[in-house]
Amino acid sequence: MIAGIDIGGTTSKIGLVRDGRVLAQTRIPTTGHADDHAFADALAQAVRALAGTGSFPELTAAGIGAPNANQLTGIIEMAPNLPWKYDVPLARMVQDRLGVPCVLGNDANAAALGEWRYGAGQGYKDLLIVTLGTGVGSGFIVNNALVLGSHGNAGELGHMTLVMDGRACTCGRKGCLEAYVSIRGLRQTYTELDGDPEVLREEGVRCIADAAHRGDAAALQTFRHAVRWLAVGLANAVVVTGPQRIVLFGGIARNGDLLMAPLRERFQEALLNIYSGRVDLTVSALPDDDAALLGAAALTTF
Amino acid sequence: MIAGIDIGGTTSKIGLVRDGRVLAQTRIPTTGHADDHAFADALAQAVRALAGTGSFPELTAAGIGAPNANQLTGIIEMAPNLPWKYDVPLARMVQDRLGVPCVLGNDANAAALGEWRYGAGQGYKDLLIVTLGTGVGSGFIVNNALVLGSHGNAGELGHMTLVMDGRACTCGRKGCLEAYVSIRGLRQTYTELDGDPEVLREEGVRCIADAAHRGDAAALQTFRHAVRWLAVGLANAVVVTGPQRIVLFGGIARNGDLLMAPLRERFQEALLNIYSGRVDLTVSALPDDDAALLGAAALTTF
Repeated sequence: MIAGIDIGGTTSKIGLVRDGRVLAQTRIPTTGHADDHAFADALAQAVRALAGTGSFPELTAAGIGAPNANQLTGIIEMAPNLPWKYDVPLARMVQDRLGVPCVLGNDANAAALGEWRYGAGQGYKDLLIVTLGTGVGSGFIVNNALVLGSHGNAGELGHMTLVMDGRACTCGRKGCLEAYVSIRGLRQTYTELDGDPEVLREEGVRCIADAAHRGDAAALQTFRHAVRWLAVGLANAVVVTGPQRIVLFGGIARNGDLLMAPLRERFQEALLNIYSGRVDLTVSALPDDDAALLGAAALTTF
Repeated sequence: MIAGIDIGGTTSKIGLVRDGRVLAQTRIPTTGHADDHAFADALAQAVRALAGTGSFPELTAAGIGAPNANQLTGIIEMAPNLPWKYDVPLARMVQDRLGVPCVLGNDANAAALGEWRYGAGQGYKDLLIVTLGTGVGSGFIVNNALVLGSHGNAGELGHMTLVMDGRACTCGRKGCLEAYVSIRGLRQTYTELDGDPEVLREEGVRCIADAAHRGDAAALQTFRHAVRWLAVGLANAVVVTGPQRIVLFGGIARNGDLLMAPLRERFQEALLNIYSGRVDLTVSALPDDDAALLGAAALTTF
């Protein structure tokens, strides 16, 4: 049995995983702890409490997915969206507390591994998983292995420059794919298109999708733009690793009619001819609630 | 001893390679043969003639680098710049004629392997080699292996979209990196900047570099633009595979003052912060005349 831990900006989820299934799960706040050590204490305590609630087999390992995590070093590197603005060697900290081997990985890489091992990527030698959320994350599987890069930080498709001198991105640069097709990006597009400010009183992009379904012109146009940008961004990834399949993950991708259907068309148009018809595009096959935990657990098995 | 064969649009070079050195070489025209079979005959004959001129050890294999070659199938797939506008299974054709195993690979991949095995890429686990020539080719080494992709056609950085709705590219799409930083691209930039038409009466980009050295404003600006585009294109590749080193290959890259020096600066600026100072940029360490042959030979050893 493996503990899968998914660290988010506000909440961290903990699950007990066996054979690709989440047997039990709980969550703790990510914020509000005295420091990173106190957070690690709380994490370990939550894992132990969860494992103690049933007749679970022995815990053999823990996998942690977190933003800005470096799989080669086991360190969360100055994550802008987490409470600790310094390097946190969380793999070692959790390993010391739980007494089992612990692997820390980038959250997008974890999602990629989960999808590859248990989801829509099963059996694909060359695969790309793109997470559309607050940010845009990605994990590349090449030749049956996750691409980590020489410093453990490969697979940042969200920060591919899509428009030179384009929109400001949270990374401090301009024109990144993430600035256009993340939740923030879609909301910005809607605003730029003079959409109804009332619509954006709700968080996320569901509110824009709902508006589009009501016939709101700016909302429909927002998705059209997102489709176009995403089609080019994905086609740009294809020329590098030539994957057979791309899996999209995250709430934005669940908009079949507004996003996926037109995206499939635009993506094929955007592809270099030698890839035409050779890369398919699909949505995550994992339950939203379990995917991050399964992915984190999958980190320990590669 | 390995025969390294480099098939170009007008000329094909043949070399005998051992221990990373070209022992002897010759060339035949690529064009003017009755058909692909006649060309394969001529190739095989040239190899045999070359091997017969000295007391060379026995030929053990042949490696062929060619545009539009698919390493997984051994086929040159409808190459727009070669005389045969259909699929040519050249690996098998040469193997049958020479009686030794033959590997066919994309010419940019061959250059990458040559550079990785014998040149500036030696010892790098994660490497990117970009060839700046008539086109822009690339080969990605990830985790000590060449990235071929699910259909053998990965590594086409030249056809990454750099400018949406940008310049027409020879591939039929718009705004590809190749449309901006190939020989053709630089010449087009010079024309668009109202450069002196007399300068372009000479082929290639040497003429533009010479003009820049004479203080020609459009020529200087042409290189400045190329640097900027290339910096973004390379930074876009880095976010995918996170290489430790990038090696540039081809005549354009030999312009140290006009291209490489400013490029090193702009490239670091273009990089996402997590890669800052972690990716170095250098020029091929292989002799221009030998590189393609060594690369083709290297195809047989991986």
